[in-house]
Amino acid sequence: MFTYRRPVRFAEVDAARLVFFARFHEFCHDALEALFAALPGGYPHLTQVRDIGIPTVHISTDFTAPLRYGDAALFEIEVLEVGRTSVTFRHTVRREADGAVCAVIRQVVVTTKLATLEPVPVPADVRALVEAHLIAGETNGGQR
Amino acid sequence: MFTYRRPVRFAEVDAARLVFFARFHEFCHDALEALFAALPGGYPHLTQVRDIGIPTVHISTDFTAPLRYGDAALFEIEVLEVGRTSVTFRHTVRREADGAVCAVIRQVVVTTKLATLEPVPVPADVRALVEAHLIAGETNGGQR
Amino acid sequence: MFTYRRPVRFAEVDAARLVFFARFHEFCHDALEALFAALPGGYPHLTQVRDIGIPTVHISTDFTAPLRYGDAALFEIEVLEVGRTSVTFRHTVRREADGAVCAVIRQVVVTTKLATLEPVPVPADVRALVEAHLIAGETNGGQR
Amino acid sequence: MFTYRRPVRFAEVDAARLVFFARFHEFCHDALEALFAALPGGYPHLTQVRDIGIPTVHISTDFTAPLRYGDAALFEIEVLEVGRTSVTFRHTVRREADGAVCAVIRQVVVTTKLATLEPVPVPADVRALVEAHLIAGETNGGQR
Repeated sequence: MFTYRRPVRFAEVDAARLVFFARFHEFCHDALEALFAALPGGYPHLTQVRDIGIPTVHISTDFTAPLRYGDAALFEIEVLEVGRTSVTFRHTVRREADGAVCAVIRQVVVTTKLATLEPVPVPADVRALVEAHLIAGETNGGQR
Repeated sequence: MFTYRRPVRFAEVDAARLVFFARFHEFCHDALEALFAALPGGYPHLTQVRDIGIPTVHISTDFTAPLRYGDAALFEIEVLEVGRTSVTFRHTVRREADGAVCAVIRQVVVTTKLATLEPVPVPADVRALVEAHLIAGETNGGQR
Repeated sequence: MFTYRRPVRFAEVDAARLVFFARFHEFCHDALEALFAALPGGYPHLTQVRDIGIPTVHISTDFTAPLRYGDAALFEIEVLEVGRTSVTFRHTVRREADGAVCAVIRQVVVTTKLATLEPVPVPADVRALVEAHLIAGETNGGQR
Repeated sequence: MFTYRRPVRFAEVDAARLVFFARFHEFCHDALEALFAALPGGYPHLTQVRDIGIPTVHISTDFTAPLRYGDAALFEIEVLEVGRTSVTFRHTVRREADGAVCAVIRQVVVTTKLATLEPVPVPADVRALVEAHLIAGETNGGQR
């Protein structure tokens, strides 16, 4: 499990004073950038030098508790499945103050040649990186 | 079906020059604000005077084609189900230039007293508004 | 004078329930995209086909009244100066409900070859477009 | 001088693949939140418990070099002036890789009772915090 802490910033709440739901998915990407930082050059090098990105092809989220300004989100990232060209992540997002689960996010990304947007096999180093967080016994039932 | 057109803005793409996936859900909310504009005072009056909001409790999206700067997204919004305190929307997001489906989004919102974040029954005027876009025969199988 | 109306959206306020100051400048760019829409293909064609952009090199803003969710901003855009490679805009941002001036923004952009980020002379069609909004007698004292 | 490091995130560039100018000011606020973190409870406590915020009343920025995805911005924050109800900051924003100055930002904020949006005297602890970064001999010529 990879963990990532993300304080809510002043401008990230909405007119109801709650973190806007779409921002949880921005936080997700921040968390994945943090995970990919273990590669040499991180996600910038992967996308801009090797021309490989991980566009999201599916995301499914249950929102169960709000985040407000002053809260920090704690991401617990697990890998549910690594396919030939895809990786399925599960993000459990907790509110740091009390541990309440705010969201559970299932995200499927496809390793993609950015110049052409064609799927490519998950590169060996990316595979090693994500498989370190693979949960045993939950790999079936994924979407691809 | 309610339709909504949303041109992509200059700063809404990411380092891969594609509209970032989380922004589709921002666009969703813009589309719902446009739908609620038919109420007197629109969504601002609903949230700020009547203290009723529609927090998203579930969202599930398949992304099937990219949007770029210069594209416009066309939202086709249908209502799949109206429950006691919830509404289920389906957004089919097309690229205006060629009609390609870029995303299909299933979004469940709960009518909520914002002061307490307690669910409240869907108000009559909101119910009338959304039921006008209800698709017959698809109302079962929803989440709540 | 070019005018542009921009309603505040639900997620564009901050934890103080006011439109975050940096968003006024996002609105500015939206307003300029609307102004450039008069060119064939608009700003997308200018930047992506002709490879000419207008990066901001200077911005100076006085904030004098807040915007909230439910407000609409009315931009009044005037051109203060058109140089060889630059254009100086002044945006007067009013709150629609009462006409109060919320911000006055002075923005200098440079016409730029995006591939190299080198300044290029203001293209003739762009010059004609912006000179239509030029204020007489205020053209000196600009920055370049 | 207070320093703050802010890596550029994947979705923070625009269609020209440069960090959008308005985002520099978002980064500014992040930097100030980091500066205020030295107060007990940080900026969230200041704004949400003590009801004191620091709305920006003036900002003036020269942009001199671009930031791209993969870059990190280094903020060097100095305080130019502390008035009765205002603080003037200067942010020098450097690109980490080569030290190039990307922007110099002069920002005036007013300590404000958020409930009424009335200016209040700079609280003693805030004054002590910002005066620690005050530059001698540059305090005149400010705006208020």
